[in-house]
Amino acid sequence: MNTQHEAVILVSCPDQLGLVAHLAAALHKAGCNILDAAQYTDTLTNVFIQRIHISCERSIDSKTLQKHLTPIADEFEMKINIRWTDKTKRVAIFVSKEDHCLHDLLLLHRDGDLHCSIDLVISNHDDLADVAERFCIPYHHIPVPNSGDPEVEQQQTAILEDNNIDLLVLARYMRIFSDTFTKKYAGKIINIHHSFLPAFAGGKPYHQAFEKGVKLVGATAHYATTELDEGPIIEQGVIRVSHKDSVKEMIRKGRDIERTVLARAVRWHLEDRIIVHNNRAIVFS
Amino acid sequence: MNTQHEAVILVSCPDQLGLVAHLAAALHKAGCNILDAAQYTDTLTNVFIQRIHISCERSIDSKTLQKHLTPIADEFEMKINIRWTDKTKRVAIFVSKEDHCLHDLLLLHRDGDLHCSIDLVISNHDDLADVAERFCIPYHHIPVPNSGDPEVEQQQTAILEDNNIDLLVLARYMRIFSDTFTKKYAGKIINIHHSFLPAFAGGKPYHQAFEKGVKLVGATAHYATTELDEGPIIEQGVIRVSHKDSVKEMIRKGRDIERTVLARAVRWHLEDRIIVHNNRAIVFS
Amino acid sequence: MNTQHEAVILVSCPDQLGLVAHLAAALHKAGCNILDAAQYTDTLTNVFIQRIHISCERSIDSKTLQKHLTPIADEFEMKINIRWTDKTKRVAIFVSKEDHCLHDLLLLHRDGDLHCSIDLVISNHDDLADVAERFCIPYHHIPVPNSGDPEVEQQQTAILEDNNIDLLVLARYMRIFSDTFTKKYAGKIINIHHSFLPAFAGGKPYHQAFEKGVKLVGATAHYATTELDEGPIIEQGVIRVSHKDSVKEMIRKGRDIERTVLARAVRWHLEDRIIVHNNRAIVFS
Amino acid sequence: MNTQHEAVILVSCPDQLGLVAHLAAALHKAGCNILDAAQYTDTLTNVFIQRIHISCERSIDSKTLQKHLTPIADEFEMKINIRWTDKTKRVAIFVSKEDHCLHDLLLLHRDGDLHCSIDLVISNHDDLADVAERFCIPYHHIPVPNSGDPEVEQQQTAILEDNNIDLLVLARYMRIFSDTFTKKYAGKIINIHHSFLPAFAGGKPYHQAFEKGVKLVGATAHYATTELDEGPIIEQGVIRVSHKDSVKEMIRKGRDIERTVLARAVRWHLEDRIIVHNNRAIVFS
Repeated sequence: MNTQHEAVILVSCPDQLGLVAHLAAALHKAGCNILDAAQYTDTLTNVFIQRIHISCERSIDSKTLQKHLTPIADEFEMKINIRWTDKTKRVAIFVSKEDHCLHDLLLLHRDGDLHCSIDLVISNHDDLADVAERFCIPYHHIPVPNSGDPEVEQQQTAILEDNNIDLLVLARYMRIFSDTFTKKYAGKIINIHHSFLPAFAGGKPYHQAFEKGVKLVGATAHYATTELDEGPIIEQGVIRVSHKDSVKEMIRKGRDIERTVLARAVRWHLEDRIIVHNNRAIVFS
Repeated sequence: MNTQHEAVILVSCPDQLGLVAHLAAALHKAGCNILDAAQYTDTLTNVFIQRIHISCERSIDSKTLQKHLTPIADEFEMKINIRWTDKTKRVAIFVSKEDHCLHDLLLLHRDGDLHCSIDLVISNHDDLADVAERFCIPYHHIPVPNSGDPEVEQQQTAILEDNNIDLLVLARYMRIFSDTFTKKYAGKIINIHHSFLPAFAGGKPYHQAFEKGVKLVGATAHYATTELDEGPIIEQGVIRVSHKDSVKEMIRKGRDIERTVLARAVRWHLEDRIIVHNNRAIVFS
Repeated sequence: MNTQHEAVILVSCPDQLGLVAHLAAALHKAGCNILDAAQYTDTLTNVFIQRIHISCERSIDSKTLQKHLTPIADEFEMKINIRWTDKTKRVAIFVSKEDHCLHDLLLLHRDGDLHCSIDLVISNHDDLADVAERFCIPYHHIPVPNSGDPEVEQQQTAILEDNNIDLLVLARYMRIFSDTFTKKYAGKIINIHHSFLPAFAGGKPYHQAFEKGVKLVGATAHYATTELDEGPIIEQGVIRVSHKDSVKEMIRKGRDIERTVLARAVRWHLEDRIIVHNNRAIVFS
Repeated sequence: MNTQHEAVILVSCPDQLGLVAHLAAALHKAGCNILDAAQYTDTLTNVFIQRIHISCERSIDSKTLQKHLTPIADEFEMKINIRWTDKTKRVAIFVSKEDHCLHDLLLLHRDGDLHCSIDLVISNHDDLADVAERFCIPYHHIPVPNSGDPEVEQQQTAILEDNNIDLLVLARYMRIFSDTFTKKYAGKIINIHHSFLPAFAGGKPYHQAFEKGVKLVGATAHYATTELDEGPIIEQGVIRVSHKDSVKEMIRKGRDIERTVLARAVRWHLEDRIIVHNNRAIVFS
C-alpha cells in the first residue's frame, strides 16, 4: 500500500524577499517533498503567487500542514489553499440541447483524463437524458422559463448542495444565472463561449461572422462572473474558416474548438493549476 | 522567347444557369487556355464570382479578349476585370517608426515572392529612411501633424499619381486617412492591425489584453474603408500568449503575427486572388 | 418536391488546351448547371484533374450524362467518375479497443456532418460492442489471431459485400490487412496513424518520441496501400507537447489530433473531394 | 544606479527529498531573492533539474554564491551553473547563401529581443557580406571546399576563440562540422533544419515532400551533435501546405517556419532556459 499522499498548495501574498525560501523550509520541516513548483509575480499589483505540488507521509494531514504553515502565513499575509489529490472534486455539468461538449467531457472522464467524479447533469431540456443515462449519470431536467428565475435556482442549488458539488461546468448551457447564484459559486463555474475577431455584439454571432467574412472562429473558456462572458479567461483557441464555409459549417467548426478548449480548462481547474488574481486567470500549465 | 502570356480574369454577376460554360466557351473561342479557375456563389445576394487564370498567344491582347467577352458580359450583366500577369503592380508602402512589416515585405520582394515593384516608401517620420535606402527604394518623409490633413494628403496623392501606384500597403502606418482619400483608393489600400479575443475599445490594447489575461493575440489584414478597421477582412492569424508574457513580450509576439498576416494578404492581392463582394473579401487562395 | 439533383464529377486526363471549355460546354448541353469547379494540373506528369459539382433536372441520369460526356472522354482520354449526391456512401468502421475515433465519427454522423450511412462496425475485440449498440449499429466481433489471416479476411469481405460497403474507415484498427485485401479495396480504405518529427522506426513510438524530447506530436490520415502507412496522404495535423508531458499525456494529446484529422479525411472522401493521382491525394477542400 | 544584479542558476542532480528546500534555504542565506523557479524530475533517470532566477546585491558575486552553494552541491552531487544576466553571451552566426534566418536574428537583436551581442558572421560564401555590413557586423568569408576540412575548422576556431564566442548559430549553414569541432562546442551550437511527416532520407527533401503530397512542412531547431540532425530538440513548428503549393512555394513556406523556430530556440538558449539531460532538451519556457 502507498504510504504517501500528495497535495497541491496554492499560495498568494504581497511580494517580498525570501518567500520561496521560507515556504520551502516550512514544507521541508513539515516532512513534505516538493514534486513541482511554479510561481508568478504580478507586477501590476506586486502580488506573489505560487503553486506547490508536494508529497508526504499519509500520517501528515491538513491539520499538521496548517500548523507548520500558519506562522509564515501570518507573517507574510499569505492566503494558502491545500487540496489533497486523493480527494477528487465533484462535478455537475449543465447542458441545454447541444451535446458535443458533454460527450467530450464524459469520454475524457471515462478514460481517466479528468481527475474528478461527474455526479450529475442538469438541463433545461430533456433532450440529452439518454446521453447521461448511457454513462450512468443522474440527469435532472429542470425547465428554466426565464433566466435567473429564483425558484429554479433554488431547485438547482438544492441538488448541487445535496451532492456536495465543487465545480459547475456550463457545457453549452443556454441560460444565464442570477448574480446571486453566480456569486455563490464564484470561481466554481466554468463557461465556454464562442469568440470572434472582431467581436460581435448582438444575436446570431455566427451569422454576423459569416457576413463579415472572418477567417478565424474561436472559443473562450472562462470563470463565470456577474459580468456576462467577461470573467477571467482560462483558455482560448481558434480554427480557420474561409468564404466557402456556410454558417452551418462555421458553427460545426466552432463546436470542434469549443469542446477542446472547454476540456482543457476543466482539466486544469481539476488539477488546481489555476489561480485567479485581479480578474486574471494565472494558469500553471 | 515565350510566345505565350497569362492573365487573371475576375468576373462577378447575378447567378444564373450556364455561366461557367458560357465563359469557358467564350475564352476558348478567343484562343485562351484555362490554367486554373475557382468560383463562388454568394447565397445571400445570389451573386456569382469567378477567378479564371488563362494563357494565350501574345498576339491576343485585352482588346481581342474584350471583343470576345463583351457579348456575354452584356447578356449576363457581368463585371469583368482582366489583368495581365506580366504587367506587375506598382506598390507604395506607408510606415511610421516600426519596421518589422516593412522589412518582411522588402525581403519577400527581393526573393521574388511578391509579384510587384515596390516603388516608394512614404512615412510621417524619417526613422526608416536608411532601411529604404539599403533596398534602393525612394523614401518620402512627409510629416503628418494631423491625421487626414488635406495638404498632406495632396502631397501624398501627387507622389502616388506621379508613380502610377496600384496598391498602398499600410505597414504599421499610425496615421488615418480622410474619407476622401480612402474612397479615392477604395480596394487599393491594405492595412494590418492587431486583433484580440475579446476585442478592446480604446487605447493601449495590449495593456488591456494583458490585464484581461488573454491567451491569444492576433492580427487582421483588411482593405481600408471609411469605417476605421472595419473593412473587408483578407487574412487573420493568432499566436499563443500566457500570463508569463509581459506587455512588451505580447507586443513582440504580436509583431511576428502582424508581419506574417500582412505579407500573405499583400501576396494574394498582387496575384489577383481577392474579390470584394458585399463588404466580404472572397480569397481564392 | 425538389425536381433537381446534384452530382460530383471527377475527371482526369492528359493535360491539353481547351479541356475546361469542352467539359463545360458538354455539361451545359446536357442540361447541367456548374455549382462549383476546381482544377489542378500535375506538372510532373502533365495530367489535368478537375472536380465539378453540378445540378440538373432529376430526369437527367447517369446514362444521359454519359451519353453527352463520352465523345469528349474518348477524344481526350478522360477518366470520368459521376457520383450523385443523393446516393449516400455506405461505410464500415474497423476498430480494436480504443474508441476515441469511433465516437467522433458516430457523433458527427448523428449530427448530419458526415454524408453517408454507417452500416456496421467490425472489430477484433468485443470491447466496443456497447458503443455501437448505443448508436444502433451492427457490431461484428471477428477475432484476428494473425494479421492478414485469409479465413478472417474472407469473413470480413463477406460482411462488407453483403452490405455493399463503399468505404472502410480504420479507426485505430490495430491489425494489418493482406495485400490481396488492400488491393481489392484500393482507394476505399482510410487509415489514421500517429506521426512524429523526426519519424521513429520500430515499436512504442510515443516512448521514443518522449525519450527524444519532441515538441510536436501529430497524426496522418491516408489511403491504405500495400506499403504500410505509406499510402497517399489525405490530411495531417499536429499538437504541441513539452518535456512536462508524460508518455501517457502525449498519447492523450495524440488521440485528440488523431480523431480530428481522421474525421476531416473521411468527410472529404464522402464529399468526393479527393482524387488520387500518382500516389498523391489531391484534396479539393 | 541599480544596486542589484540577477543570475540564472541551473541545477541538476540525482533526485532526493528536500532538494528544493535546501537550495532555497542556501540561496536565502546567501542573500538572494528567488524571482522565478521551475523544476523537472526526469523519471527515466531519476534526475532532478531546476532553473532558478535570482536577484541579489551587486556585492554578492559568483565566489560568494559558490561558497554558499558548495556544501549542498557536494552533499547532493549537484552540477550547478551560475550565469549573471548582465554578462551577455557572445554569438557567431554561420550562414551560406540564404539570409532569411540571418535577417530575422539581426532584426530581433537590434530590437532588443535577443539578450546577446552578435559579434561576427562566418560564411563559406561571400553572398551575404552586405547584410552583415548593414548591421555593422564583421563578416568572415571562409570557403569550405570539403565539409569538416581540418584547416578550415582551425581558421574558424581561431576566429571564435579570438572573439570569446559563447554560442554558434547555424542559420542555414550548408556545411557539416567534423566530430572534433562539434564535440569542442558541445551544447553551444544551435542548428535549424526542415522536418517532414513522414521523414525523408536522401537529398532534395522538399521535392520528395511534394511528390508525397504532404499537408504539413516543418522545422526543428536542435543542438548539434556528432549524429547529424539528431541532437537534442529545442523547438519545432509546422505550416500547412496543399497540392497547390509548388516545390518553390513549399520551400518559401518552410523558410517562414525555419526562421521563427530558430529565433525562439536562440532566445531560450540566451536566457538560459534550456538544460540538456540524457539527450533531451528541457526547456523552461
